[in-house]
Amino acid sequence: MLSEKMRKLQGEVVCIRDIFEEGKKMAAVYGAENIFNFTIGNPSVDPPKEVIDAFVKYAQMKPYQAVHGYPSNVGYPEVRQRIADYLNRTYGTNYDFTGIFMTVGAGTGITSICNMILDPDDEVITFSPFFWEYKSYVGNFRGKLVTARCNMQTLQPDPVTFEAAFSPRTKLVLMCSPNNPTGAVYTEESLKAIAAIMEKKQKEYGHPIYLISDEPYRLLSYDKPVPYTALYYKNTLTVYSYSKTLSIPGDRIGYVAALPTVDDYDDIKLGMNGSIRWIGLVNAPSLQQMILLDCCESCVDISIYKKTRDILYNGLTSMGYNVIHPDGAFYMFMQALEDDDIAFCEKAKEEKLLFAPGTAFEGPGWVRIAYPVPPEMAERSLPAFGRLYKKYR
Amino acid sequence: MLSEKMRKLQGEVVCIRDIFEEGKKMAAVYGAENIFNFTIGNPSVDPPKEVIDAFVKYAQMKPYQAVHGYPSNVGYPEVRQRIADYLNRTYGTNYDFTGIFMTVGAGTGITSICNMILDPDDEVITFSPFFWEYKSYVGNFRGKLVTARCNMQTLQPDPVTFEAAFSPRTKLVLMCSPNNPTGAVYTEESLKAIAAIMEKKQKEYGHPIYLISDEPYRLLSYDKPVPYTALYYKNTLTVYSYSKTLSIPGDRIGYVAALPTVDDYDDIKLGMNGSIRWIGLVNAPSLQQMILLDCCESCVDISIYKKTRDILYNGLTSMGYNVIHPDGAFYMFMQALEDDDIAFCEKAKEEKLLFAPGTAFEGPGWVRIAYPVPPEMAERSLPAFGRLYKKYR
Repeated sequence: MLSEKMRKLQGEVVCIRDIFEEGKKMAAVYGAENIFNFTIGNPSVDPPKEVIDAFVKYAQMKPYQAVHGYPSNVGYPEVRQRIADYLNRTYGTNYDFTGIFMTVGAGTGITSICNMILDPDDEVITFSPFFWEYKSYVGNFRGKLVTARCNMQTLQPDPVTFEAAFSPRTKLVLMCSPNNPTGAVYTEESLKAIAAIMEKKQKEYGHPIYLISDEPYRLLSYDKPVPYTALYYKNTLTVYSYSKTLSIPGDRIGYVAALPTVDDYDDIKLGMNGSIRWIGLVNAPSLQQMILLDCCESCVDISIYKKTRDILYNGLTSMGYNVIHPDGAFYMFMQALEDDDIAFCEKAKEEKLLFAPGTAFEGPGWVRIAYPVPPEMAERSLPAFGRLYKKYR
Repeated sequence: MLSEKMRKLQGEVVCIRDIFEEGKKMAAVYGAENIFNFTIGNPSVDPPKEVIDAFVKYAQMKPYQAVHGYPSNVGYPEVRQRIADYLNRTYGTNYDFTGIFMTVGAGTGITSICNMILDPDDEVITFSPFFWEYKSYVGNFRGKLVTARCNMQTLQPDPVTFEAAFSPRTKLVLMCSPNNPTGAVYTEESLKAIAAIMEKKQKEYGHPIYLISDEPYRLLSYDKPVPYTALYYKNTLTVYSYSKTLSIPGDRIGYVAALPTVDDYDDIKLGMNGSIRWIGLVNAPSLQQMILLDCCESCVDISIYKKTRDILYNGLTSMGYNVIHPDGAFYMFMQALEDDDIAFCEKAKEEKLLFAPGTAFEGPGWVRIAYPVPPEMAERSLPAFGRLYKKYR
């Protein structure tokens, strides 16, 4: 009785969580301390103290209706103003609060845009390797995801494959920097190249092409600041989530931000309001919105993730593994030691090492190592990586 | 740049909230105490104490990841078990936790089912007058809402119009009892009639037809208990929200419940998991899920709503208004004093009375009075209703 669409999506599914669940089972058999589970991006660093304090404060603030009652569909004006102010101060932008739309995490940020823009068979370009859920988000709203291969030496977007991916049906481009699954932070040069091609294609096709910039990892960058995408391309719709920066992924709070200069700004505002209602959200969770008044600028202690990254990157490369240096997020992309990355992942399990095959991200021949894990676990995992390497010598 | 679908939905929109906003403006001009705003179903009774206590307790419970980290897409098993146990104890059902799917309020409960079941142009029947957002929920997932007129003397479903509404494209029926916008509680007799017709039509068309029973007002019944729909029709998918019973509509927490005996139970479980992921929810807010461990059986003090209902119903009918006795929710349906219910609402504004025209619910010639307001405000509004009545004499 499932719809044709649902059956098609189920046929395409790649569930990293299955591998994660397998890891939990292995932990039960061999002991958690003997399993090295690098499969999933579940933040391990505690939320900042002010986040917990804000939950406690607003949950019991009176009148209760002001926190637990219905806000506007797109969110509390004062929360949206607070976020606009923060963005304007940080990036020199000129958001007004009516261009900030509160969403249930970044997921519904992306889907509410797809729902608003896509007619059936419209196309959305993303850079591969990519977070597989993108394909389902686009497909669920009856669009078609088209991929443009990154340069696999740098994991930066490749202008040649990108330009070749366009068609007159292209309505959206969907990018993520710092990137899941690769950890790449797109450089200013990459963003300029993306913008130039998109400007050209907008002109060629005679309609706006919006760039969804999915930025849940924007503050998780370990070597240099992340360039702010909306400064490089006018028709950017910025999608943000507090899941990673505040370590509250279960709580589901984020936003979509549109600058007043985007094409059809008024339509976008009406469309986002409609999408948020008709996808059934009604509004993003109100308590989670309210805590942002106190902590929308907070961030977890990222030095812990940086430490883990350095242990793994230095350890693995010194053994001989090919790992592209990850500048942000908490993922790294490592070349498998055989062509078949799924077989390589199976072999790794013998050493109690779990990570996801690159095939699950359209990155065959590689694997994704998700490292939101304690540094000492990363340290303890190195001998296992060493034994795995020796098996291929 | 908006999609064709989005433009179509925007063309059909009826926004009760606009009237509500107008009421707020009038309150600023004339003083809040002089405006009688019966336009919107925003709960006014405080949440039970244990709800606020649970928010405070779980928000700061350690380890933080157990409350603020990612749960499974369909929710925490222990929360789903708690709800299954409650339902089984209360209604004599046999839910197991795998048939309980946590959602972002009732809105995404309905949309996740539509998303799972509907192919384009599939039909969904609902009873009119109906909550207008249903049309958008169904249309947003490319289905077609078909309406079956209730008996306007009783506001109960009419078996004749209901049976006539079916076609081979009918995949879902969507009902709401206690009802928004009418306040009707569907009787056992009505539920039996619905079930008999649906059983017959399932057989005739050779495919399951699921009944979405939207029950956010299940505990808001003032004269007698609400019959539990799933006991009357096997292929019921029960949609629940804690918005009204806990007075936390902004917080967005609810569930879909399927008994193990529904057709294609395993497909439904996979489909709900997929819908919750691909609509972009990832999961219902985790903190809001956790509080249900402590208060999924709680309910606001409904004696306050009952008091308001009695003041209004007795006051209005004794003046000569035709109001169908509302047994539940916090709405009543009143016949307008002229054929044009929109003109009647305009005339009412002269007396600072605001309510929604029945046309907004496919109930022309009637108006909806939403009464989650303090009893003393209801009392004070009666003279204004009296003056309005005299204008038509």
